[in-house]
Amino acid sequence: MNTTRAFAESLDTEDPLAPLRDEFVIDEDIVYVDGNSLGRLPKRTTSRLAEVIEHEWGRLLVSGWDEWMLLASRIGNLIGEGLLGAAEVILSDSTSVNIYKLASAALDARPDRNVIVTEARNFPTDLYILQGLAEQRGLELRLVDTALDMRVTPENLAPLLDDRVALVSLSHVSYLTSGLADMHAITALIHSHGALSLWDLCHSAGSIPVDLQSCNADLAVGCTYKYLNAGPGAPAFLYVRSDLQETLRQPIWGWFGQRDQFDMGPHYDPEPGISKFLVGTPPVISLAAVQTGAEVLIEAGIDRLKTKSDALTSYAIELFDEWLAPHGASLGTPRDAAHRGSHLAIRHPDAFEICREMIAGKVIPDFRQPDVVRIATPPVYTRFVDVWIALDTLRAVLEKRRP
Amino acid sequence: MNTTRAFAESLDTEDPLAPLRDEFVIDEDIVYVDGNSLGRLPKRTTSRLAEVIEHEWGRLLVSGWDEWMLLASRIGNLIGEGLLGAAEVILSDSTSVNIYKLASAALDARPDRNVIVTEARNFPTDLYILQGLAEQRGLELRLVDTALDMRVTPENLAPLLDDRVALVSLSHVSYLTSGLADMHAITALIHSHGALSLWDLCHSAGSIPVDLQSCNADLAVGCTYKYLNAGPGAPAFLYVRSDLQETLRQPIWGWFGQRDQFDMGPHYDPEPGISKFLVGTPPVISLAAVQTGAEVLIEAGIDRLKTKSDALTSYAIELFDEWLAPHGASLGTPRDAAHRGSHLAIRHPDAFEICREMIAGKVIPDFRQPDVVRIATPPVYTRFVDVWIALDTLRAVLEKRRP
Repeated sequence: MNTTRAFAESLDTEDPLAPLRDEFVIDEDIVYVDGNSLGRLPKRTTSRLAEVIEHEWGRLLVSGWDEWMLLASRIGNLIGEGLLGAAEVILSDSTSVNIYKLASAALDARPDRNVIVTEARNFPTDLYILQGLAEQRGLELRLVDTALDMRVTPENLAPLLDDRVALVSLSHVSYLTSGLADMHAITALIHSHGALSLWDLCHSAGSIPVDLQSCNADLAVGCTYKYLNAGPGAPAFLYVRSDLQETLRQPIWGWFGQRDQFDMGPHYDPEPGISKFLVGTPPVISLAAVQTGAEVLIEAGIDRLKTKSDALTSYAIELFDEWLAPHGASLGTPRDAAHRGSHLAIRHPDAFEICREMIAGKVIPDFRQPDVVRIATPPVYTRFVDVWIALDTLRAVLEKRRP
Repeated sequence: MNTTRAFAESLDTEDPLAPLRDEFVIDEDIVYVDGNSLGRLPKRTTSRLAEVIEHEWGRLLVSGWDEWMLLASRIGNLIGEGLLGAAEVILSDSTSVNIYKLASAALDARPDRNVIVTEARNFPTDLYILQGLAEQRGLELRLVDTALDMRVTPENLAPLLDDRVALVSLSHVSYLTSGLADMHAITALIHSHGALSLWDLCHSAGSIPVDLQSCNADLAVGCTYKYLNAGPGAPAFLYVRSDLQETLRQPIWGWFGQRDQFDMGPHYDPEPGISKFLVGTPPVISLAAVQTGAEVLIEAGIDRLKTKSDALTSYAIELFDEWLAPHGASLGTPRDAAHRGSHLAIRHPDAFEICREMIAGKVIPDFRQPDVVRIATPPVYTRFVDVWIALDTLRAVLEKRRP
């Protein structure tokens, strides 16, 4: 392959999505390949938030709520239709709280079953929330082993399923390996055992197409501060398939889920539909940033973003093979682009130190236990030359360590 | 009494806290007496949030977390020490989610008891959350009737307490009547029955002194978007008395409560102390606004704010007696300043229409079911002349309705 920087630059020149980079605030002194931890600031978000703060809060004051009340469902709907293949999405709470609400609801819906299934290497907060629910209810937690496959598959999941399983909670894209689960096939498998599926979309939403409705997914959650570029800790989203909205019991009966909220009636009487899963007053400023973050992606088109994402990660794997494999690094991500998200896991026993040295060289990856240098390539603002610089820097670090 | 505008203006001239008004963004075209629904924008918040958005998010990106990780406890501590009489306060989630977490923990700590006590006219979300917990666990919910007293007192609470009561959940200041509960006496009464107390400080924090530690309160929650002026839906706070932090079971096991969070261990192992009650990634932009909002109050001093609050509400009651009582309005707030917070409930059968007409006259109160015009006088930015204009406008509306 052509490993020159000039070649990377030529790929950028040919990239139809290259102009999108100008939508973001970018400090050209650093190469940022950690957008799956925290996405970049869209320029339009700066002006939108100034308007929310100075005009809507500062001047409209309480009458700002006429519009703010609509944001959770309006922006949820925008994300849902534009990126997730299902309109009925709402913004609410954090991913962790949403996993709690939906997992709790699913367990209540299967009272005669006593098993939760998840992935052994699922994201920690998913594991912890499920552990807490299992402990409180005296349930068994079964763990899919994905060490070999780097992703959940029908084959590694099937042996754990039986008619005692109430809920299967999985990440669509693994935060660790980038392995992409086949949501369609796996949801069908879960349903064949009478269990409910809860998908965590944190590492897929906004980087690759998600099709909740056609996959017949039951429940989903995800964050907005990674590929959706909504800012640190911006509110999370959740999805409940429409036929489940009425029957599922949301455990946290907050006033934002109340029908005719400002009648302030003395008894909880939830809204019909997905709004029942709202709880308290949402953080409006952080919430407003979700809209502008999502708009940039929707204008680009999620299919075009996926195409670029695959091109970026494939290019990175080619450089990996050429430059890094000879230095003792191994690839912790599926080689088939259809089986991965928008980041790569590069494994090395000294990953922690390697990350520190890369950061000293102004390339920002992140370290994930136990041995992963994680290189994210959010397609909306990542250039091929960023990939080139990141892997060239990693190569230099490895060469220096093993002369 | 002297009911002239000139007299109100003279009170402002003599007010030592009057210069604080300049700390806030204020549109002089309207008179805003709804600061207990949504507080005003502090000028310093505008510049602080621009820094968080443009520099910390936009430039520092993921390394912003070095500081952001500390905000929940650092700002919580600031509020706790400065305004709540207990250092160990953290910012987390919404008030509703925090009530759920702490009430659930309290119920788990009293497994042999099956009653929750709250006020019949507690804020709706408090009622709903408790109803949800009672339904899920098969508990009895007993309601204090405060219709006569306009606040919870040891006398109206005592008949509901016995050794079946696990939890008593009350608002410190009633959102409706402004009635202020005696936290010291009531907490002692609750403890004499072996139950735990959960105080909702939404309508007291930042307007009157709260002394959680000397009252020996067990648990407390509150919002930051009313008197703390932290912006719409800014994160809420919670308090757990230190000796309870280890033993209480937090129901939502999120990764922000995990010891050594970024070791990302496979098993939930909570932080010691109050951090265990954190859950997911906090909305940093909304969170940062809590600090600047609280700083203005702490610099002013909560005791001086209480003195001014009492002067404002007392002045409002004098105008009420002179101008509004003759027109069929009644006072829905305790007349003793020691028994009320920073707002007044003015009751009238046509309250809803009256509020609409006041708003048309550029005075912003709010309506609360069934018959309350709520007039808030947050002492940090409310002038005596604001009170004068608000009540004069209300008088004009009433006079027009009943010529």
